[in-house]
Amino acid sequence: MLDRLNHVALAVPDLAAAAARYRETLGATVSAPQPLPEHGVTVVFVDLGNSKVELLEPLGEGSPIAAFLAKNPRGGMHHVCYEVSDIRAARDRLLASGARVLGDGEPKIGAHGRPVLFVHPGDMFGTLTELEEV
Amino acid sequence: MLDRLNHVALAVPDLAAAAARYRETLGATVSAPQPLPEHGVTVVFVDLGNSKVELLEPLGEGSPIAAFLAKNPRGGMHHVCYEVSDIRAARDRLLASGARVLGDGEPKIGAHGRPVLFVHPGDMFGTLTELEEV
Repeated sequence: MLDRLNHVALAVPDLAAAAARYRETLGATVSAPQPLPEHGVTVVFVDLGNSKVELLEPLGEGSPIAAFLAKNPRGGMHHVCYEVSDIRAARDRLLASGARVLGDGEPKIGAHGRPVLFVHPGDMFGTLTELEEV
Repeated sequence: MLDRLNHVALAVPDLAAAAARYRETLGATVSAPQPLPEHGVTVVFVDLGNSKVELLEPLGEGSPIAAFLAKNPRGGMHHVCYEVSDIRAARDRLLASGARVLGDGEPKIGAHGRPVLFVHPGDMFGTLTELEEV
């Protein structure tokens, strides 16, 4: 049921500095910053060929990563995203196993324009886990 | 210089429970537990096709993930590992940029039998970052 590792999201307090480290020091292929105001973040994609890292910086009021950065001011690993072919089937298996899905349980349209949901980190061994239907 | 995303490592307090969640609830392809006493962990590999997740549980005294789990008792995202073709060249660029490499700066043989080193999370925006020469 789980397909590819879509991305790993790293929250950073300074997107320009993080992008420069990946691009200049590590020689990675790094996108221009993309503001996603409806998701409360600005994102830089680090292309790793087989998968990608998303560097996230808060954007605007009430950013979903603001609390994380308040707790982890230098930044840190925020979530991992797996691809699934049927997100409602995945959700139903998670709920049946006792895991909690964030929000109202209905998939939302995520930053890539596809249905996503988040599994409570307390039910995934401390890792905030996103599922994305691809 | 950065090549593929080799793996994401998630530290867990109960490897059997975490492996069961990935295998049974999420339908992922999950390896048998592999004790790596020389690295102080037991690992389960979650095969995601394009990359993998490594679930890590402490093994023996002085496990390198014991302190992390003491601080994060339910588990959490521990590190990310990128592939590089020349680990000493990558190290030298990191050091020249002011980043700190853990240990004595010399690559060690990692859990996959290849040279690895870790970059200090304080110089990678809070993310412990492993480089593996492939």
